Amino acid sequence: MPPQNWPDLSGRIVEDGTGRWHVLPIRVYFEDTDAGGIAYHASYIRWCERGRTDFLRLLGTDSRRLIDGSSSHEPAAFVVRRMNCEFLRPSRMDDILEVETRVKALGGASVTLLQTVRHAGRAVFEAEVTVVLVAVSGKPLRLTSAIRAGFGDVPDGAPLGGVAGQQDG
Amino acid sequence: MPPQNWPDLSGRIVEDGTGRWHVLPIRVYFEDTDAGGIAYHASYIRWCERGRTDFLRLLGTDSRRLIDGSSSHEPAAFVVRRMNCEFLRPSRMDDILEVETRVKALGGASVTLLQTVRHAGRAVFEAEVTVVLVAVSGKPLRLTSAIRAGFGDVPDGAPLGGVAGQQDG
Amino acid sequence: MPPQNWPDLSGRIVEDGTGRWHVLPIRVYFEDTDAGGIAYHASYIRWCERGRTDFLRLLGTDSRRLIDGSSSHEPAAFVVRRMNCEFLRPSRMDDILEVETRVKALGGASVTLLQTVRHAGRAVFEAEVTVVLVAVSGKPLRLTSAIRAGFGDVPDGAPLGGVAGQQDG
Amino acid sequence: MPPQNWPDLSGRIVEDGTGRWHVLPIRVYFEDTDAGGIAYHASYIRWCERGRTDFLRLLGTDSRRLIDGSSSHEPAAFVVRRMNCEFLRPSRMDDILEVETRVKALGGASVTLLQTVRHAGRAVFEAEVTVVLVAVSGKPLRLTSAIRAGFGDVPDGAPLGGVAGQQDG
Repeated sequence: MPPQNWPDLSGRIVEDGTGRWHVLPIRVYFEDTDAGGIAYHASYIRWCERGRTDFLRLLGTDSRRLIDGSSSHEPAAFVVRRMNCEFLRPSRMDDILEVETRVKALGGASVTLLQTVRHAGRAVFEAEVTVVLVAVSGKPLRLTSAIRAGFGDVPDGAPLGGVAGQQDG
Repeated sequence: MPPQNWPDLSGRIVEDGTGRWHVLPIRVYFEDTDAGGIAYHASYIRWCERGRTDFLRLLGTDSRRLIDGSSSHEPAAFVVRRMNCEFLRPSRMDDILEVETRVKALGGASVTLLQTVRHAGRAVFEAEVTVVLVAVSGKPLRLTSAIRAGFGDVPDGAPLGGVAGQQDG
Repeated sequence: MPPQNWPDLSGRIVEDGTGRWHVLPIRVYFEDTDAGGIAYHASYIRWCERGRTDFLRLLGTDSRRLIDGSSSHEPAAFVVRRMNCEFLRPSRMDDILEVETRVKALGGASVTLLQTVRHAGRAVFEAEVTVVLVAVSGKPLRLTSAIRAGFGDVPDGAPLGGVAGQQDG
Repeated sequence: MPPQNWPDLSGRIVEDGTGRWHVLPIRVYFEDTDAGGIAYHASYIRWCERGRTDFLRLLGTDSRRLIDGSSSHEPAAFVVRRMNCEFLRPSRMDDILEVETRVKALGGASVTLLQTVRHAGRAVFEAEVTVVLVAVSGKPLRLTSAIRAGFGDVPDGAPLGGVAGQQDG
């Protein structure tokens, strides 16, 4: 549900031959740069989190309702379990970047995503990120049907490649 | 000059009875919040800087060209000299905020701005911010005609209320 | 209560002719700088919060126990209500700074602090900061005797200059 | 060269049976947490950069002198090329963490480090990080003898396990 006055604020969901994925524009501001004159490396980690949050939002699952417990049985959040990052090229102040987020695999409680940050079409950063849905108690929670369907268009429990239904450790 | 694919990425300039001002939408992400469950207070400081940067950008002066020296006689940047902040109400994860930026006064090398962050129309944060254009050497630089005209529609040196031409300390 | 292996991690409380105040050392890292080559202005806001948090900690009130509700009647936190900041001189990568925090006034639910960030003894940043103790519900809470005594060595309700007992709005 | 008044500000170098490594204490402040009540995942990325910077500092190579060009033939900086991260356990407000940094391998222009963040001795985060020394022009630079000797106690070009002298791609 994009906001009324700022239709692109949450980016866009794209459906094409490669599946359903999400793109979010990012502007590089002073806060994102460092004294080396380029974007500070941890900025990409924050930008990827914005991409994941807005992908979920456009699929109908916003983070606050997860935390409130109003869109799940108990207060919950996606937490990052693993992140493998390649920093390919520097970004600079005022650059417009695009964060692309694609689902690679769905587990019982986890989602593995491929995220690419591009500048003028060229990849400047790539990451494979595994997030786990956990209750505030720390217990992993099974992904809801709504989340599963949004990410993969498959009913809960149905196979998604060879990965669906696999339990996370 | 708004970016082609994301027309609202830099916000918008508004012209109305109160003058020419700028509005930038902001989404509250996890990175902006803290363990108190609300937006961390320094996040508002970063958001206001985004608003000022994009106001300048839409007026034709982007920060990188200032730093490069390609839009001024020597490499330069606006630095914050003074900031008086009122934190009026908390913001929360997933909130859509709007940063409004208005010029209050132009000095020889400085600009004083009024910035208001709103949620659903209601002010949650207000600041009066004085920024100074300085060369990388640290020397204050006289505002260019382009910047003066953009902010106030007045030729360089012409009076703007009682403030234009006043030298900064 | 300083940590065992790192005795200076929370800074130190100083008692001298000017009263009881706190000093915390800060190193400027890449994360704190921006493409202008100096410390990003919002970094000072974060550093001041570290100083306030560690001052309270050395007085026996840590933030987590406030939030837990284990050191107050209900879960609570200090939130910033007002902050007037002067950015006096730039700081640079690798600089060692000291954040000095002094109590200016105690209100019923609020504390006003003077914070100065120094480099090699010279002030680079100054702020007057008013924080309010609020319950998670948003309701202002009366400062506990422990906090009042720690800050000002005065019993709860006793006058502290002309300010003690004044109610915050 | 530890600072005079705050001897532990840059952490410590440890020499034991496993080699020469570095440990830096970190306090979790509000700025590091998020609305999930735990440390935001990108905070660990910033903390690891502090550990690397202070390890180099205690070896005699500070970042500003690299950027100035005063400790290398031309202005230079270590940039992160690759980072594989495991987020093992949550950290919370007020926790004292220790960032341990060990050299895994030296290449011609690169260093691969193993970094572990511990809380009360238990690993909460682990990363393998490859950084490359690059000139501001973007060109990779051969590690200086001082850096090589500091990290591995081996003369420039001499073998360090099976890895020294291996060229980075």
